[in-house]
Amino acid sequence: MNSLSPLRPIRFSARTQDLHPSPIREILAVVDRPGMISFAGGLPSLDSFPQFNLEAMPQHMLQYGASEGEAELRLRIAEDMQSLGLQCSAEQVLILSGSQQGIDLVAKLFIDPGTPVAVEAPTYLAALQVFRFFGARFVAYDAGAPDLDTWRREKPAFAYAIPTFQNPSGRCLDASERTVLAAACDAANIPLFEDDPYRDLIYDDCERTPVCAGLQHAPWIYQGSFSKSLAPGLRLGYLVASPELMPFLTRLKQAADLHSNRVSQWLVLQQLNDPDRSQQLVELAGHYRQRRDVFEAALSRHFSDLASWQIPPGGLFFWLTLNSRIDTRQLLPKAIEAGVAFMPGEPFLPMDVEACGQLRLNFSHADAAQAERGLRILAELVREFV
Amino acid sequence: MNSLSPLRPIRFSARTQDLHPSPIREILAVVDRPGMISFAGGLPSLDSFPQFNLEAMPQHMLQYGASEGEAELRLRIAEDMQSLGLQCSAEQVLILSGSQQGIDLVAKLFIDPGTPVAVEAPTYLAALQVFRFFGARFVAYDAGAPDLDTWRREKPAFAYAIPTFQNPSGRCLDASERTVLAAACDAANIPLFEDDPYRDLIYDDCERTPVCAGLQHAPWIYQGSFSKSLAPGLRLGYLVASPELMPFLTRLKQAADLHSNRVSQWLVLQQLNDPDRSQQLVELAGHYRQRRDVFEAALSRHFSDLASWQIPPGGLFFWLTLNSRIDTRQLLPKAIEAGVAFMPGEPFLPMDVEACGQLRLNFSHADAAQAERGLRILAELVREFV
Repeated sequence: MNSLSPLRPIRFSARTQDLHPSPIREILAVVDRPGMISFAGGLPSLDSFPQFNLEAMPQHMLQYGASEGEAELRLRIAEDMQSLGLQCSAEQVLILSGSQQGIDLVAKLFIDPGTPVAVEAPTYLAALQVFRFFGARFVAYDAGAPDLDTWRREKPAFAYAIPTFQNPSGRCLDASERTVLAAACDAANIPLFEDDPYRDLIYDDCERTPVCAGLQHAPWIYQGSFSKSLAPGLRLGYLVASPELMPFLTRLKQAADLHSNRVSQWLVLQQLNDPDRSQQLVELAGHYRQRRDVFEAALSRHFSDLASWQIPPGGLFFWLTLNSRIDTRQLLPKAIEAGVAFMPGEPFLPMDVEACGQLRLNFSHADAAQAERGLRILAELVREFV
Repeated sequence: MNSLSPLRPIRFSARTQDLHPSPIREILAVVDRPGMISFAGGLPSLDSFPQFNLEAMPQHMLQYGASEGEAELRLRIAEDMQSLGLQCSAEQVLILSGSQQGIDLVAKLFIDPGTPVAVEAPTYLAALQVFRFFGARFVAYDAGAPDLDTWRREKPAFAYAIPTFQNPSGRCLDASERTVLAAACDAANIPLFEDDPYRDLIYDDCERTPVCAGLQHAPWIYQGSFSKSLAPGLRLGYLVASPELMPFLTRLKQAADLHSNRVSQWLVLQQLNDPDRSQQLVELAGHYRQRRDVFEAALSRHFSDLASWQIPPGGLFFWLTLNSRIDTRQLLPKAIEAGVAFMPGEPFLPMDVEACGQLRLNFSHADAAQAERGLRILAELVREFV
């Protein structure tokens, strides 16, 4: 709709027609209701956040800064990336105002109306929204077994992947699947955009080497976030990219917000340099592992005759496939009425589907009693609905 | 250029061809050289920044937050806007990650390739860059006397204006000019995008009522910044918009970075609620007024036979029109070699010009001795160049 009132039509951009309300926003608006049990968001535990203070911060951090980010932080991130097997220099690091910004920058860099973009099905819905907003035509693929013929025919401008604790499926690609994905990007010369916000939330031993580290010559962008491992309110993430992309990404960053918050950059650097940091991550993962296991036990009690699922080795979500292919968007209002919020599966799919019978359940937010009660209610609703 | 190597062409978006290196970035890269006298940037004084601390900040500010921003901050900003004569509610306030982000969001909302956009000539070069990147075709206008016939013929999607201490010209529209601009937007039904980052840096009495406050029915977006009046490193700004635009702007904000930094939002709110705040602004303006006057005296000593200028009643810049219409971009490398940086005038113009003979000089950064020495050197260079 290009006008809101017949008296004064406003001429919006064509892309604004693809600017739909976000299902996340609409659900998050109700999860704060008293008594609501939320399996909807991907919110970290409040008690996992550090106690920050600014006493030692130099005043010049309050001045304008570099679009690329603080030199010390970029160097520290480059070192961390190298320890993961990703060869890069500090000059290849761009600090972001959260990893959502990386999605916006990459979309601007590659997507015109009609541009083919390879995406997993399902995948992160806010990435789909942004790519769609810029006009992407989606080419669905399996990140563990991409079909080279399709890629060679469709020539996607890039492939978006969440190889580690995928959102929403929870899947973690194994070593050989990572090799296959990297080889496919190289063979078809498709830039790889690897989104990796959950890597520190690991509960079972599994391969986490960035797929970008296995590329021979395809261009690449790897991005990470401090929202899950430190605190989302700081709105800080980063990307690391192959050198030929950096001048463009840096200019796009400058055009978007000049540079990222320097107070956050300073606070995050202190945390990364804290000798207790790795122990804190172990404790954080231990806390979430326990919640996952409690949640899985409750799932088994209430959903074993209704759905199937994999136990996610990391991340924040269970991805349920119901035995009946219902439209989970229609289940949602009934669940909210009954005091339980979840994420319907359909918005995670790049193609239009009438009903996918899948839903995403966050396990990190609810405690044991809430998980038990919420899943019991949800299972009853599914039984009624089917 | 759509590929960087013949071996692996990368297919970028069409708009990436308009993604040029920013002249600001390139100049800021050299101003840190020891001994360089910089009239280039618009950096606030380091000693004007408050001493921030986080002791009283609630931990939940570290969690994900609302895309619109913190409720208390939005309310406080709406109250401030009302006191300026702009009728609005807190629901019409959107917190931004710096006002550069507002430019990105407005461009996304309105601009397709070829969309006409009304801009002043000269105007803020980073706004021109973003509008151009999204494909705008510029319709230059005089904000103090817009030509309605042109607007009716060209039908710009919106008009961008900096009515108060314009960047780079320093001009402040008087009351009748503000009335004329608002009436023109109403008559042609052109949305007004009013950018107002400098309003607190006032040195001489003048009209500063937002032009948006005078609109009868045209849609509007007014934006402000905390970069000049508090600290740019916090990367915080805001926009206030007519109600019909808010759902779109909020979704665009969410797609861009989910929400703005909550630590910054909390810190800014504490400052806005500080009873000493208005006195601090008076002192800040007094400090800059003194620098302006010292700079003007040095300008008169060295440039009276070379250029003309107005004394800016606020803001951070002198806009010099040289008696000879030289290409000031070609003057710049010689000036930098001689230890003086400034902003050439050409990038501030929406049309391609070979040589405009104008340049922007920041007066807030250099002290009296630097201003004297830098302007003396610059005047000599202009004499040689002409």
